[in-house]
Amino acid sequence: MRIVALAGGVGGAKLVAGLAQVLPVQDLTVIVNTGDDFDHLGLRICPDLDTVCYTLAGMANPDTGWGLKDETWHALESIKKLGGPAWFALGDYDLGTHLERSRRLSSGVPLSTITREFCLQWDVKPVVLPMTDERVATQVLTAAGDVLPFQEYFVHQRCEPEVRGFRFEGVETCRPAPEVLETLALADLVILCPSNPWVSISPILAVPGIKDAIQRHPTIAVSPIIGGKAVKGPAAKMYAELGIVPSAKAVASQYRELLTGFVVDEVDRDQVDEISGWGIILHVTNTLMSTADDRYRLAREMMRFGEALTRR
Amino acid sequence: MRIVALAGGVGGAKLVAGLAQVLPVQDLTVIVNTGDDFDHLGLRICPDLDTVCYTLAGMANPDTGWGLKDETWHALESIKKLGGPAWFALGDYDLGTHLERSRRLSSGVPLSTITREFCLQWDVKPVVLPMTDERVATQVLTAAGDVLPFQEYFVHQRCEPEVRGFRFEGVETCRPAPEVLETLALADLVILCPSNPWVSISPILAVPGIKDAIQRHPTIAVSPIIGGKAVKGPAAKMYAELGIVPSAKAVASQYRELLTGFVVDEVDRDQVDEISGWGIILHVTNTLMSTADDRYRLAREMMRFGEALTRR
Repeated sequence: MRIVALAGGVGGAKLVAGLAQVLPVQDLTVIVNTGDDFDHLGLRICPDLDTVCYTLAGMANPDTGWGLKDETWHALESIKKLGGPAWFALGDYDLGTHLERSRRLSSGVPLSTITREFCLQWDVKPVVLPMTDERVATQVLTAAGDVLPFQEYFVHQRCEPEVRGFRFEGVETCRPAPEVLETLALADLVILCPSNPWVSISPILAVPGIKDAIQRHPTIAVSPIIGGKAVKGPAAKMYAELGIVPSAKAVASQYRELLTGFVVDEVDRDQVDEISGWGIILHVTNTLMSTADDRYRLAREMMRFGEALTRR
Repeated sequence: MRIVALAGGVGGAKLVAGLAQVLPVQDLTVIVNTGDDFDHLGLRICPDLDTVCYTLAGMANPDTGWGLKDETWHALESIKKLGGPAWFALGDYDLGTHLERSRRLSSGVPLSTITREFCLQWDVKPVVLPMTDERVATQVLTAAGDVLPFQEYFVHQRCEPEVRGFRFEGVETCRPAPEVLETLALADLVILCPSNPWVSISPILAVPGIKDAIQRHPTIAVSPIIGGKAVKGPAAKMYAELGIVPSAKAVASQYRELLTGFVVDEVDRDQVDEISGWGIILHVTNTLMSTADDRYRLAREMMRFGEALTRR
């Protein structure tokens, strides 16, 4: 089964790492959100691409989910001492990634090519594709009337502003990165990872051509909302601020037009009937990925579920 | 006595650190070579400014003379792993300096302002001025007919190419940084530090107005060549390749039109008569600065020598 997974940061990276263990390497492609990418200290930073790649390489910090393990923070210490902007945590090893990526981007190499080259050096086996090689900038519209660049909202203001909506600047006119549509065309199953539906999966789906390509294939999603709460990050807070009760059902409703199947946690079993009523096939299991074993088990269940769906 | 010292990298920084111990803080200004500055990995790097400031701040690596003590090299490890350019040693703490300096330069802050702000944070007491806020790029003309950017020659090619001359691109049209000419106008004594005459002191002297300003004041130099050898770096090799026997005398001859006095090492006592014959007053002492005590002692001797000269 050829699988294409759509992923954002930590939650998506975990499931993708599980899938990479379950599947033959040539059968997994990950399309990653780049709406969070931004320029900081003259560097181009791609948080979701890095989280996915670091996780697949076994280099990720297991405590945070993002960044590198055994990281040091000496450059940031220097910047702080000089009164520079230290709100975005840049580890020293991680800085090497940003410096070298920025250098290659400046010399005209597309992000997708750089990602492929980096994956080769990091020994990342699955194909990892940015959703686009062009610049798309997620912006958060706030109740205070501000339009905040995503990292300003997410990191600098710690998701405190009340959200009213999102804008993916540049997405309407961007093209999917090379191989994105080609790989989707050959997919046997598309998986929407348990990443933030608003700011991780939506930007990918907004890239022209991607949603259409997905609609031609069986598609399953895993709810990033468990028991009304996000495992990590502001997804539940966003639902609430947008006037939607955060729930697995809300996620399924958001993806409704794309979904063949949906995976919800045991604690959300009460929502199964309603979601089923929309013609979506449900799989109920423990979806929390605390350990590497959890990832592996969930990925295996996803594959069995997907196989059953595609055989129908 | 108000002192203005002209300095390049390690040798100059050592004497300047000695002078800073001897002099009241308000009496010392250092004008630093920026011909070695270059762009690397998207960062603006100012090696001589950093060496002087790190040394004055007591932050310099005592083993190398450049870079920071207790440095780590994690970002560079990442860059190497990705196959990026790792020939220029960038430590992690040091990277913080380059990132923050580059950020401020990009937002339009002049190098001299950034240097003043950094010195405040680093608790560097003497005034440190870049020779100019504009870009000057030292280039090495080689016997093979190449024109090498300085760091390409100095670091990447480890000073191996045979030199035929030097070019300080942009120097003819640049203006001295703010305060450079003003401070020189008020100087009681100018000191040419034991830095490389070809590529550290010459670029400063080539900045329009600086040489004229120096000629109005008593000026002393310390030979960076001791016993025919450079304490550090390619100065002696450069003299030889340019057809000049490397010696204290050769240094004095190069600075001849500027010098009131000249400090040579005991081992070069045999050259005293000839240099004296040019109307330059000599001071012979141990000029090697291996320890902090050496710097202090040499700086104190320089000051006494300078005082004697200015009282004549």
